Amino acid sequence: MDSKEKILSLRKLMNENGWDAAIISGSDPHSDEYVPERWQARKWISGFTGSAGDIVVTMNHAGLWTDSRYFIQAEKELEGSGIELHKTRLPDSIGIPEWLESAAKNKPGFKVVADGLTMNTDEILSIRHSIGKHGGMLEDIPDYLSAIWKDRPDYPAAKACTLPLRYSGKPRKEKIAWLRGIMSREGCAAMLLSVLDDIAWLFNIRGGDIEYNPLLLAYAVITLDDCEIFTDGRKFSRNETLELQKDGIDILPYESISSRLATHSKTYGNILIDRSTLNFHLYETVTGCFGNDRVINRPSPIPAAKSVKNGVEIRGMKKAALMDGIAMTRFFIWLDGQMRLVKKGKTEVSEIDAAEKLRQLRKEAGALDESFGTISAYGQNAALPHYSATENSFSYLKPHGLYLVDSGGQYPYGTTDITRTIPLGRLGKEERRGYTLVLKGMIALSRAIFPKGSRGTNLDALAREALWQSRMDYGHGTGHGVGHRLCVHEGPQAIRHNWVDCPLLPGMITSNEPGLYVEGRYGIRHENLVLCKEAGKNRFGEWLCFETVTYVHIDTSAIDRKLLTKQEINWLNSYNRGVLAKLSRHLDRDERKWLAKRCRPIK
Amino acid sequence: MDSKEKILSLRKLMNENGWDAAIISGSDPHSDEYVPERWQARKWISGFTGSAGDIVVTMNHAGLWTDSRYFIQAEKELEGSGIELHKTRLPDSIGIPEWLESAAKNKPGFKVVADGLTMNTDEILSIRHSIGKHGGMLEDIPDYLSAIWKDRPDYPAAKACTLPLRYSGKPRKEKIAWLRGIMSREGCAAMLLSVLDDIAWLFNIRGGDIEYNPLLLAYAVITLDDCEIFTDGRKFSRNETLELQKDGIDILPYESISSRLATHSKTYGNILIDRSTLNFHLYETVTGCFGNDRVINRPSPIPAAKSVKNGVEIRGMKKAALMDGIAMTRFFIWLDGQMRLVKKGKTEVSEIDAAEKLRQLRKEAGALDESFGTISAYGQNAALPHYSATENSFSYLKPHGLYLVDSGGQYPYGTTDITRTIPLGRLGKEERRGYTLVLKGMIALSRAIFPKGSRGTNLDALAREALWQSRMDYGHGTGHGVGHRLCVHEGPQAIRHNWVDCPLLPGMITSNEPGLYVEGRYGIRHENLVLCKEAGKNRFGEWLCFETVTYVHIDTSAIDRKLLTKQEINWLNSYNRGVLAKLSRHLDRDERKWLAKRCRPIK
Repeated sequence: MDSKEKILSLRKLMNENGWDAAIISGSDPHSDEYVPERWQARKWISGFTGSAGDIVVTMNHAGLWTDSRYFIQAEKELEGSGIELHKTRLPDSIGIPEWLESAAKNKPGFKVVADGLTMNTDEILSIRHSIGKHGGMLEDIPDYLSAIWKDRPDYPAAKACTLPLRYSGKPRKEKIAWLRGIMSREGCAAMLLSVLDDIAWLFNIRGGDIEYNPLLLAYAVITLDDCEIFTDGRKFSRNETLELQKDGIDILPYESISSRLATHSKTYGNILIDRSTLNFHLYETVTGCFGNDRVINRPSPIPAAKSVKNGVEIRGMKKAALMDGIAMTRFFIWLDGQMRLVKKGKTEVSEIDAAEKLRQLRKEAGALDESFGTISAYGQNAALPHYSATENSFSYLKPHGLYLVDSGGQYPYGTTDITRTIPLGRLGKEERRGYTLVLKGMIALSRAIFPKGSRGTNLDALAREALWQSRMDYGHGTGHGVGHRLCVHEGPQAIRHNWVDCPLLPGMITSNEPGLYVEGRYGIRHENLVLCKEAGKNRFGEWLCFETVTYVHIDTSAIDRKLLTKQEINWLNSYNRGVLAKLSRHLDRDERKWLAKRCRPIK
Repeated sequence: MDSKEKILSLRKLMNENGWDAAIISGSDPHSDEYVPERWQARKWISGFTGSAGDIVVTMNHAGLWTDSRYFIQAEKELEGSGIELHKTRLPDSIGIPEWLESAAKNKPGFKVVADGLTMNTDEILSIRHSIGKHGGMLEDIPDYLSAIWKDRPDYPAAKACTLPLRYSGKPRKEKIAWLRGIMSREGCAAMLLSVLDDIAWLFNIRGGDIEYNPLLLAYAVITLDDCEIFTDGRKFSRNETLELQKDGIDILPYESISSRLATHSKTYGNILIDRSTLNFHLYETVTGCFGNDRVINRPSPIPAAKSVKNGVEIRGMKKAALMDGIAMTRFFIWLDGQMRLVKKGKTEVSEIDAAEKLRQLRKEAGALDESFGTISAYGQNAALPHYSATENSFSYLKPHGLYLVDSGGQYPYGTTDITRTIPLGRLGKEERRGYTLVLKGMIALSRAIFPKGSRGTNLDALAREALWQSRMDYGHGTGHGVGHRLCVHEGPQAIRHNWVDCPLLPGMITSNEPGLYVEGRYGIRHENLVLCKEAGKNRFGEWLCFETVTYVHIDTSAIDRKLLTKQEINWLNSYNRGVLAKLSRHLDRDERKWLAKRCRPIK
């Protein structure tokens, strides 16, 4: 079936059920960054592969609502589908609620269907409110698309595992006891969790259901008596199931969450939820069972606790960084050799070849997986910060200009995220200048000392100042939190120009990644991870600083030396010296020699 | 009468009226930074001279609630008054609402009196809410203290004036038309104003009722038909009254605001107010007249409009800065001479003498007034950022260490605010280092280039970074807005560590004043005013920068040269060169020679 046929069969279904409009989101029930195929309904019906957007189908219209990141892509991918592009976030944009409101106005008893599992509460309530003004209704029917999506993929069914204490650093029983303390303070005897990395962190379990993120598809309920994880029981081995049981945790079927909530509502008084992260269907279920008065809505305390890594997690993250450093170094050595051959016309290396080689080397270094899709971008391709080379569209690396590689690994003991931009040969003056200015920003943030209580927003300008002086900037945040063998993008802290009201705390690991993107020319990004640490106390207050926990040399040959201060040179030389010292005993003689040459101090 | 007797007579009054508690605030009906004597009830009854605090008197207790800035001062000043100090903003502080709640709990029918003219709406509503839980009531009786405050000062009655177009740059009729446009958009036929600098700006009028701030005591009502200023009519000359009338503005008695609101409520539909700035009594009056539904509460659009100076205002501010530079330079020349004599034991110069000399010189340079009370602080006194020398407590300047002078003038065409810290002789290594680090911060902010949309908070770290690197900081904001012949502290923009959600816009004038304060040792602050300006547009966006609009040389002899970068030296030399060029033709030969020596470039 092509898109047109799929929409036809959807309209038939709508007709049978008396639905005037159907909403199709591309989200899953847990708002995952990477959505399992089962829930990629937007892609299934439209062919649009962007990561954001919603589709609305009525009897005489089908539209995709998406934002400027995807305008060009959507127009290309929607060609011939009969689906029209609605541009969002523009001054005169008409959103889905307003669009449906107009439709409802013209038809008494207007009926909309949505899959509440794949939309959040605010989205649905806003549509209900808009169409409600004209007597319209929205019906929440979980999985309503399954009736026509014949080959719809099943739930992901990867194996899961428990995380040993030597990796987690904190027994799950302690974490659960802490959470029960918070539940008690909120007057709740039960708590409902649906965010997959919150669940993985709390119970010290990991899975493989989500691409790049080692998570398992699950809900969880914590009561003052015991804990229940709702997931496919076959994910865990018998021993692991017993291990969890010993800690008071039962595994129940994923689909039984609703019926268990009904049971719990008879046993327990109030239940704690975080509405902002619940899907609408589950929210309706829990308020239906407990009644609105007994559902206490609070921001979950888990993201903040999870973001502050314990000593064992920090050691694991550093070990991951070390292994990752070995892989990256070997990758650059390989690339160096390949580029010599390319120069002589003896081989070709594509962006995809390079990414694949890096994936292999990471695996050899102990990585279980990549922590996100590698951005392997040569020349002007790197000017798209989220570029992804595909079989249909990629470049070959040439022996001049800059090559940007942004990648990371999931190791048993931690997660990495690193970007290096390296010269493949002769560089333009402008590229050299950009390379150095971005590096100045990265160094300024690395060296920062700041008072306790500072938000990432307070530090963001340090990473941008050097670029700003040349009236240049980058259109993304400077840093995001990184999980411990969890999601590579993790909150709540961030280093951004807009306000993020979360103080940086000792134990948090955040990326430090300024960049510079010149369309049609080049893209530059330097990224290390930094660990927030105590830096003393004095009459002026308490101080914090960063320790860089990425160990991959920074190429000095692309630097415009006269743009760096003495302190910046000192930082750079000391950083490269540290990388060499850390990696040396893991490299063979030739590799060591290669690296030593790149780590030579500059003056 | 001393405090004890005053409290006795208050209790007698309370007894006669059946009041269980009386609240005395130290605010005036317009929330002025400098409160006219008439409303200094807190000082009158307690002897406490701090600028923040509230007093509550019951039959068996009298207490002053104030914050940590005033703990030491309050304890000293309250001695023997029978008034107890309640410390606020501490973790376990009990605020006035909670304290009154306890009292109300123990006495059925608890009755509190407050002067609603001197408190804002939220304060009163919060107390009403707290005591209301136990059946307590709060009565708003304007000026209730007048019954016992026999020698209570009258309303301030200074002359006012209209501001000619050559100073204001924009006819009042244009400003009023703009405001009426906003009123119409909000569906309002009338608007009530009570903030004195909003009124002064809108009508291009200035007064002398408030210390340092050239404002007149007034309310105002703008309707779609005409405007009314409620103030003492004798403030304006006959000609000026006619000038205002010609522009559709009537002068009515200050006290007639309530009865006029009642009249207007019969003529006009909705009225626009900004509740956050109205005193409670006026808020009750306007809602009483119009009814809650016809009172539209919105943040006033005037502060934002006022903060963006027009071309004429900017020229005026620059001229004020020039005149101020002449006064400051002559002051430093005078001080230089005096300190030579001090060294020889031939004279003495106190902090007060110096401030007085500076006041005279400013006056000679054309200032109408100071823009705030000069901070003239020698040595360790400067470690208190808001130090004020008094007849009872001041120091003499000695020929060593640092002297800090923070001052400003009100000129017919603009307002200034400047701080210089200068060496009076030999300096310690630490003072020299501190002087230089603070200067680095000031230079970094002066040189900043930043994208349109940036908030002051985004730039704050630039001014602190150099200090932070040495684990030092200052406990105040980096910059505040400055009015045009208006308040020297003006919103809405600010450069601060905490979030202030107001973008910096071309035309705004803001202070740039990092500092460093070491208790018992020294205090350093460097302050210039900076004008926000366009700095071009390119593929990365639109850019802004600052132009420094303070023309007083920066002493280079106190600098630790090796702490400055080449760019910082260049900025400094170019700044001093510019100051010399600007001031030279206004100085005599000797003065010029003196300044030229101080402005000599350093290497």
